[in-house]
Amino acid sequence: MKKQLLTICASVALSLSAPMAQTVETLPVYLDDSQPIEARVQDALSRMTVEEKARLSYAQGKFSSPGCPRLGIPELWYSDGPHGVRAEINWNDWGYAGWTSDSCTAFPALTCLAATWNLELSGKYGKALGEEALYRGKDVQLGPGVNIYRTPLNGRNFEYMGEDPYLAAEMCVPYIQELQKNGVAACVKHYALNNQELWRGHIDVEVSDRALYEIYLPAFKAAVERGGAWSIMGAYNKVRGTHATHHKLLNNDILKGEWKFDGCVVTDWGAAHDTYEAAMYGLDLEMGSYTNGLTSESEFGYDDYYLGKAYLKMIKEGKIPMEVVDDKAGRVLRLIFRTAMNRKKPFGSMASPAHYQVAYEVATEGTVLLKNGNGKKQAGLLPIVPGAYKNILVVGDNAVRNLMQGGGSSELKPKDFISPLDGLRKKYGNVTYAQGYKAGRPMYGNVEEIPQAVMDSLREDAVAKAKEADLVIYVGGLNKNHQQDCEAGDRITYNLPFGQDELIRSLLEVNKNMVVVLISGNAVAMPWLDDVPSVVQTWYLGTITGNALADVLSGEVNPSGKLPFSYPVKLEDCPAHAFDALCYPGDSIREVYKEDILVGYRWYDTKKIEPMFPFGYGMSYTTFEYGKPAISAKAMNKDGSLTVSVKVKNTGTVAGKEIVQLYIGDDKCSVLRPVKELKGFRKVDLRPGEEKEVTFTVTPDALKFFDDKRHEWVAEPGKFKAYIGASSADIRGAVSFELL
Amino acid sequence: MKKQLLTICASVALSLSAPMAQTVETLPVYLDDSQPIEARVQDALSRMTVEEKARLSYAQGKFSSPGCPRLGIPELWYSDGPHGVRAEINWNDWGYAGWTSDSCTAFPALTCLAATWNLELSGKYGKALGEEALYRGKDVQLGPGVNIYRTPLNGRNFEYMGEDPYLAAEMCVPYIQELQKNGVAACVKHYALNNQELWRGHIDVEVSDRALYEIYLPAFKAAVERGGAWSIMGAYNKVRGTHATHHKLLNNDILKGEWKFDGCVVTDWGAAHDTYEAAMYGLDLEMGSYTNGLTSESEFGYDDYYLGKAYLKMIKEGKIPMEVVDDKAGRVLRLIFRTAMNRKKPFGSMASPAHYQVAYEVATEGTVLLKNGNGKKQAGLLPIVPGAYKNILVVGDNAVRNLMQGGGSSELKPKDFISPLDGLRKKYGNVTYAQGYKAGRPMYGNVEEIPQAVMDSLREDAVAKAKEADLVIYVGGLNKNHQQDCEAGDRITYNLPFGQDELIRSLLEVNKNMVVVLISGNAVAMPWLDDVPSVVQTWYLGTITGNALADVLSGEVNPSGKLPFSYPVKLEDCPAHAFDALCYPGDSIREVYKEDILVGYRWYDTKKIEPMFPFGYGMSYTTFEYGKPAISAKAMNKDGSLTVSVKVKNTGTVAGKEIVQLYIGDDKCSVLRPVKELKGFRKVDLRPGEEKEVTFTVTPDALKFFDDKRHEWVAEPGKFKAYIGASSADIRGAVSFELL
Repeated sequence: MKKQLLTICASVALSLSAPMAQTVETLPVYLDDSQPIEARVQDALSRMTVEEKARLSYAQGKFSSPGCPRLGIPELWYSDGPHGVRAEINWNDWGYAGWTSDSCTAFPALTCLAATWNLELSGKYGKALGEEALYRGKDVQLGPGVNIYRTPLNGRNFEYMGEDPYLAAEMCVPYIQELQKNGVAACVKHYALNNQELWRGHIDVEVSDRALYEIYLPAFKAAVERGGAWSIMGAYNKVRGTHATHHKLLNNDILKGEWKFDGCVVTDWGAAHDTYEAAMYGLDLEMGSYTNGLTSESEFGYDDYYLGKAYLKMIKEGKIPMEVVDDKAGRVLRLIFRTAMNRKKPFGSMASPAHYQVAYEVATEGTVLLKNGNGKKQAGLLPIVPGAYKNILVVGDNAVRNLMQGGGSSELKPKDFISPLDGLRKKYGNVTYAQGYKAGRPMYGNVEEIPQAVMDSLREDAVAKAKEADLVIYVGGLNKNHQQDCEAGDRITYNLPFGQDELIRSLLEVNKNMVVVLISGNAVAMPWLDDVPSVVQTWYLGTITGNALADVLSGEVNPSGKLPFSYPVKLEDCPAHAFDALCYPGDSIREVYKEDILVGYRWYDTKKIEPMFPFGYGMSYTTFEYGKPAISAKAMNKDGSLTVSVKVKNTGTVAGKEIVQLYIGDDKCSVLRPVKELKGFRKVDLRPGEEKEVTFTVTPDALKFFDDKRHEWVAEPGKFKAYIGASSADIRGAVSFELL
Repeated sequence: MKKQLLTICASVALSLSAPMAQTVETLPVYLDDSQPIEARVQDALSRMTVEEKARLSYAQGKFSSPGCPRLGIPELWYSDGPHGVRAEINWNDWGYAGWTSDSCTAFPALTCLAATWNLELSGKYGKALGEEALYRGKDVQLGPGVNIYRTPLNGRNFEYMGEDPYLAAEMCVPYIQELQKNGVAACVKHYALNNQELWRGHIDVEVSDRALYEIYLPAFKAAVERGGAWSIMGAYNKVRGTHATHHKLLNNDILKGEWKFDGCVVTDWGAAHDTYEAAMYGLDLEMGSYTNGLTSESEFGYDDYYLGKAYLKMIKEGKIPMEVVDDKAGRVLRLIFRTAMNRKKPFGSMASPAHYQVAYEVATEGTVLLKNGNGKKQAGLLPIVPGAYKNILVVGDNAVRNLMQGGGSSELKPKDFISPLDGLRKKYGNVTYAQGYKAGRPMYGNVEEIPQAVMDSLREDAVAKAKEADLVIYVGGLNKNHQQDCEAGDRITYNLPFGQDELIRSLLEVNKNMVVVLISGNAVAMPWLDDVPSVVQTWYLGTITGNALADVLSGEVNPSGKLPFSYPVKLEDCPAHAFDALCYPGDSIREVYKEDILVGYRWYDTKKIEPMFPFGYGMSYTTFEYGKPAISAKAMNKDGSLTVSVKVKNTGTVAGKEIVQLYIGDDKCSVLRPVKELKGFRKVDLRPGEEKEVTFTVTPDALKFFDDKRHEWVAEPGKFKAYIGASSADIRGAVSFELL
């Protein structure tokens, strides 16, 4: 008399052939932690209907994609972004959900991490971020960003790791490894060639194979091959005519082919545009699509996604092979097993003193001292010892601005925020403040216009106060407004916004004792540079901003950051801007990377253009003396190696850290090569008077270029130079060797 | 030069004395799964500041309370309710969050589970519910409800397990045990004496110690002592002048004292009213408070809760001993370790065929056949074999209504819903339908009024169709509108609403071939009972409603449910209504339980009032013959036991299940006792012709009453009777014995 419910339950869409996991007495393989992940993936696939497999590949909410409820395979939760765990968003719109438990540690922006050149700190950053993601129940953290800094106008450079593929590659690996030890997936973004925000949704990038392989891909390759990243985010833009997120060359041939990536390609939110391409060209997870072409997605369901019912229809029509369906579903299952179903993962923690300490270390080690006097002509003002000045004036909107607001998807809701002014007041006591200028509201779209009379009044107030001060600390730079350092738009000019250049001039007229602190994620023009004794470049530092800044300015911490990108004197010096508009920003349809492989210092070196500040540059409160570099051999053969060593000594009076850089140059080559390329770096901590020897191992890989005709990396026999530098422009010694 | 961030980070409220867990190399005890839970609780407490301890005790969102983010102790997530996992609610208001991943299995209401009298099914129900809670990431499931059915007007009886403390106690234990095996806490509700919804927030219940201990507490006691419940929900109402949720007698003396409960007392949402009482009288977790006295809580923060900053202030003023703070925080930690930090828990599953099967079994076994003919005078119409009638008419709003809508916090969003009409059409083919009557919109507050002309038209349509039909299946009853079976209000009358009595009369006038199916969670008056050949009582059956109903009506499943509460002929027969308004519903301030221990059948038995249908009653499509009960001994001493056995035989032609009931009566006692009380039951499955022997063990515990003068359970020596019955009114045999 008792009967199977299934036979009478017409509204249940499940196939009768799908076994019921719950009726099996022994633990099925896919639920058995002791089984290898591949066996679990295959077992799960063997139990799933085609509808269940296909359903894994697209979102169910703004930041969630489904598992398989029938089999008890949990869903996945995603969080923006690279600098902390984003506050909770509504299920189906971009509004904040109003939680009170989602206040996080805002870590310094990734450009700051890159500026530390400290691999250990990168690992600590990833670990701490992963712990916060875990505590908030996130499975996939959307970061790190490793797009190459191609132009200082790119609104999103602050989320990336600079202009050099080697530095970005080295720095992203420990972050990913330590993040993922928490059972939280990294999602490396934005793959690939998303090097500007203007027209990012459709701009079609033309780039040579050489520039692709030598400049734009190495960080992604390292993230996958060495970092072991479990997911990667397909970019918005097109590449050679096809959207990057479902791209045969990028996904099938390179990522999953050459690099053997076994994780998931996740779209950037709304980056998918075609069902067949998505299915066949390597997309695994579609998120954030707007199928009605508007910003409101309330009118359609998730099943209308490109990988939704249209995908299932194509499968059933035989247009998509089942191997493709199984591969895609298998990758999502693998991601779920690695994260949501990972029983060994810890519980994480949030906004803890330990995490603040990591943020503080990154912030202080990433801050770059750009100028501190000019030899005998001009005395530097730093460090500013507490008590040395009676009347310190702080000027600038960035001194009081919560620089976590705005800026796009990396926006955070920090549990604490210590502004620069807070930090300076704690350090120096009763500091006077003048805003000096005012920025419009920090939102996407049109920025609030500030009336000139208001700006005049703010400037006049600041100048009047500067007259009375014995030291001015100017805290300005960019902010995260639209068309500043902000997603979904590029900067308009290379100069500082909001009349800051004029303001700085006005202040200098009444008080030359001025330290300029720039908070930005991009290089800016500094027409006043000669007249300002001391300049500090810092970044979006998050929660502990003010403490870190005050400790660097006071000398409590000796700055040890070096620039992860070059500062050109003027925009036209920059390679992306040295050609026509088709090179940047494109004609709105198409863009051609005409500078090719000569990005950043590769361009300035080769074209002999002196930048304002070179790649790898940064000062200290102490001085370092480099010895003569020594090489272990004069030649190596194509499977050999040699070492280059150099002694570095702290010749000043305070402890400090120096970043010793190794560049390699090819004396002669059948193709154009840059004068030199970064192939090694080491950050050494030296007490006053202390000397350490730094040794780099050089293998033929460091000598290679990508031969696009043969489609392989080639090192041509001949002479090479190994340069030891304190920056890309400050070479302290060089040794020659030959590749046999 | 490197310094501790803590010393300079003024905005961080943490005490310097709180150790940083992350800096400890070895795994701290509280994170070590291999350590006993008590050691972990003590270790965590030892690391926490007083602020962190106090913060554990109140909500951070509508359905979430915090852990300790610094130490990585996760937060808790709660879900209504006893019948399934509620759809996701907004963080800080009662709106639905619009998720698309929260469609669940709607299990039959708990009254249906009680009507199965099947302990194994109770366990299956708890297991399946726990799996759904797990899959949805819930730590605490707000159920089961075990308040005693005192009056058929209580709007929330459908969530409870009937009128008998023994039945409710037995039935809730497996549910709790199996639910909690998933690492999901049961939260047994509503403790205590929340026996009506009218004025539930403030009505002050006066009840004798005897009624409290003998009638209203046994199910809670069993839930705690035998079920091992990890949390319990304090009720809205007052008891003897104090709100139940922070009540010295209920929480400190009985629950945590006599029963040694080591879990958490959680408020019903908004049930707390006083900081000192909450702190001192056993409340551990405050949820859902409205501190501004209005329904909008957007104007105050969670820190304004009674156990928020006011509690912390009292602690700091020394008004609350630290032992109380530690005890409270320790209980919350224990709950977290048992649930959110339980690494062994499975992943759960949602809306699976296995869960639908459990729902189906509960639904079919809980459906009660109330009438099927009247001997030779009237032929029964059930079962209705498919094909036996050419022209079946289904009448009634409940045949098409989604009975998961409305009703209060137990409302669910089922993935599937099969209506009675869906199920009957699948079973019988082309069934005709007439709505017959119409209920207003199913919302809290005022119910939409239906114009009389509409009602007339619906009735006329149904009567016209009934004339043409050869069988009428009427599907009516109550629904989950306000003042029906719905939280936050009581029913107004005992009769069926929406003119159904008149409609049934009108239908009977044109067609006597009518089966009445009542869907309700309460007894109703049936003035037409003599004239209807067959009546089936079913409950809110959730997802699989139509399939279960059709299979019972067709005989595919033989009904085997028995009533968990009595159906009085009229309301005045009911004990709570036999006195004045102070007995029910009270004078809006105070209520006196004047019927005392004589609740349900205890009253009808003792007062010799014949109910319409007695407690324990239910028919079958087969017949069962009981043998003469046998007793193992004529006497037992106060630490002995004896057994009562009876043979039961299926004397019909189809398989069926019979619920054999054991009642005990005290022949003579120094205090008033009911004629008899349920002390055992067994559900036996019998093939046609099969006979089984059922044996009950009787111990002195089954003979005891609560002696309120001595405050202990007492069995007075003397003569007792053991009754074997097919219901409380259908006694098939009795044996006497003596307690020495």
